[in-house]
Amino acid sequence: MTPEAPHTYRHDDLLSFAEQVFTRLGMPEEDARVAADSLVRADLEDAGSHGISRLGIYAKRLGEGRIAVRPAITIEPHGSILHIDGDNGLGQVVSMHALRAAMELAGETGIAGAFVRGSNHFGTAAYYCQHACDNGMALIAMTNSPPGIPPWGGRKAFFGTNPLAFGFPTKSGQPPVIVDMSSSVAARGKIILADKQGESIPAGWAIDENGAPTTDPAAALRGAVLPLGGAKGYALALAIEAMVSLLTQAAFGPHVRNLYKENEDAANVGHCFLVLNIARWLDYEEYTERMEQFLAEIRAVPLAEGAESILIPGERRERIYNERMERGISLSSEVIEELRELSVRCDVHFPQPKGGESL
Amino acid sequence: MTPEAPHTYRHDDLLSFAEQVFTRLGMPEEDARVAADSLVRADLEDAGSHGISRLGIYAKRLGEGRIAVRPAITIEPHGSILHIDGDNGLGQVVSMHALRAAMELAGETGIAGAFVRGSNHFGTAAYYCQHACDNGMALIAMTNSPPGIPPWGGRKAFFGTNPLAFGFPTKSGQPPVIVDMSSSVAARGKIILADKQGESIPAGWAIDENGAPTTDPAAALRGAVLPLGGAKGYALALAIEAMVSLLTQAAFGPHVRNLYKENEDAANVGHCFLVLNIARWLDYEEYTERMEQFLAEIRAVPLAEGAESILIPGERRERIYNERMERGISLSSEVIEELRELSVRCDVHFPQPKGGESL
Repeated sequence: MTPEAPHTYRHDDLLSFAEQVFTRLGMPEEDARVAADSLVRADLEDAGSHGISRLGIYAKRLGEGRIAVRPAITIEPHGSILHIDGDNGLGQVVSMHALRAAMELAGETGIAGAFVRGSNHFGTAAYYCQHACDNGMALIAMTNSPPGIPPWGGRKAFFGTNPLAFGFPTKSGQPPVIVDMSSSVAARGKIILADKQGESIPAGWAIDENGAPTTDPAAALRGAVLPLGGAKGYALALAIEAMVSLLTQAAFGPHVRNLYKENEDAANVGHCFLVLNIARWLDYEEYTERMEQFLAEIRAVPLAEGAESILIPGERRERIYNERMERGISLSSEVIEELRELSVRCDVHFPQPKGGESL
Repeated sequence: MTPEAPHTYRHDDLLSFAEQVFTRLGMPEEDARVAADSLVRADLEDAGSHGISRLGIYAKRLGEGRIAVRPAITIEPHGSILHIDGDNGLGQVVSMHALRAAMELAGETGIAGAFVRGSNHFGTAAYYCQHACDNGMALIAMTNSPPGIPPWGGRKAFFGTNPLAFGFPTKSGQPPVIVDMSSSVAARGKIILADKQGESIPAGWAIDENGAPTTDPAAALRGAVLPLGGAKGYALALAIEAMVSLLTQAAFGPHVRNLYKENEDAANVGHCFLVLNIARWLDYEEYTERMEQFLAEIRAVPLAEGAESILIPGERRERIYNERMERGISLSSEVIEELRELSVRCDVHFPQPKGGESL
């Protein structure tokens, strides 16, 4: 069988497809919309590893009951803290319920912390930052994931790649400032890609299974990815793991289960969202004015030799988002094939590629 | 005049000396105690660049009135947020007032955010983490400082070296887990030291004034220190700067004034403290039990080739602290000379070195 050629799809066609798959699997409509939107937005923002390529495994796990289709999410308020049990729902669904509740609480209290256990992979942290910023609030978001990073001096992965994200709203009509960084030097996805393409990886990215530095991507995938900036990234990964597991009662380190492995228990991923309702203590207009000045002054710093421009975190993401909203999302033949199979299995129409009628 | 030989001092002698200098300058006793304790604790924990070597410049600026001896610190509560104006007090004094107020509020609300403007250099972030942990609370602390780090692609320092710190309490009698990392690859202090000793610095630490990479410490000091992990550290420095200046109304980037430069305006440094009163939503005993298990499992990870042990962030600091509490704090001849001059100027007795009677 010849693999399908890569094609470009309209984002709203993919959105509608993913949404229908989720509802067909029994998910409530609002949750299906959030889950589909999170995946397609990741594709629009060039974070394809967290995009619709995940729909297949999500659908499989939802179908098997290893992720709950209709989780009974419980939210316990304790002052300005929400202690949340996601009841093993999809990470995006649990997270959006948590974030909305925390935003409502912060509306009153200025700051609210949502500490979430019993969840799953939540997609990109940037997604939640965007949502908070769209509503005029700043956000700090963190999560863990199955082991990827070893402790400094250790040779076995223990911590997740543990992203730390910050979102700050800006003047209306401008993209928010969104910082979304993992605690590792490089994304595991880049190592997988190098392995597929038979290329070596830069020194300093990973260690092999004996803990020795390696530039062989296959050895790196059997070993572990190194923390950002050496011992500092280890300390950061550890702090984030403590925030999202010890303060939430979620699993930590090697106890977090992997979505891609068969027959594992519930992942019990943990998240933390700290919502800041800026207007509760600042004049919001004044805040956005100062933000504009801050960003303008950063852009005006003289360039280093060889540099072309100074980018604000979130700018590249926004530019690619706008391009793809217009030109569409390009999917690999493997992903298209998987989505077509899913379309048959769930009896949901898979869209034609953009301009596909004439192909 | 022959410079004084390096000597070792008892920590409580230095504490008492610094406290008397501060009170002699007109500082209230409780504030003087906090300021002195912060400096001496930094020396005890091997963070000498934030230790008693700073007393001279602090005393000078307090004496000149460029830092307020008795600031009228104002604390505006907005729900679970405290918006604080430090009235140009010493950073340690303003920060401890802010932290205490935030801890009291978090006692009730579970989480409290203190957003502080009008402050000065606050010493080590670890100091505030230690204080929160001693009281069973977790803390996230951030501050800015005069420009040290350029934006990615820029050649001029803009952001402070902007530390991000996390403190987590552990079982009673055990040291807390304290992560205290700057957003730069290496501390500026290490570059100053290399310059003094005529050594080169590793590639990747700094750029010269044209933005070109350099291993010459003198060129690096005219240029800027590079962010931790490249573009990620830039994004982190930017996010911290936004947290502590845009959300506090403190100065940002090049508008933050330098304590060491003559005739500058008030520094207007900003800090952010997010206090988490764990017992408000978790069984505290259960939390510390899980923390113990977490740390034990990290320590049990098999060692990488060439590694001797896996350290938990805060462990090395605690070990050195205990050693120096017993053996004393060693000061360089330059620092001793400066403190002796201060002792004469303020009419405060400077202590004998440890066992100094017999030297």
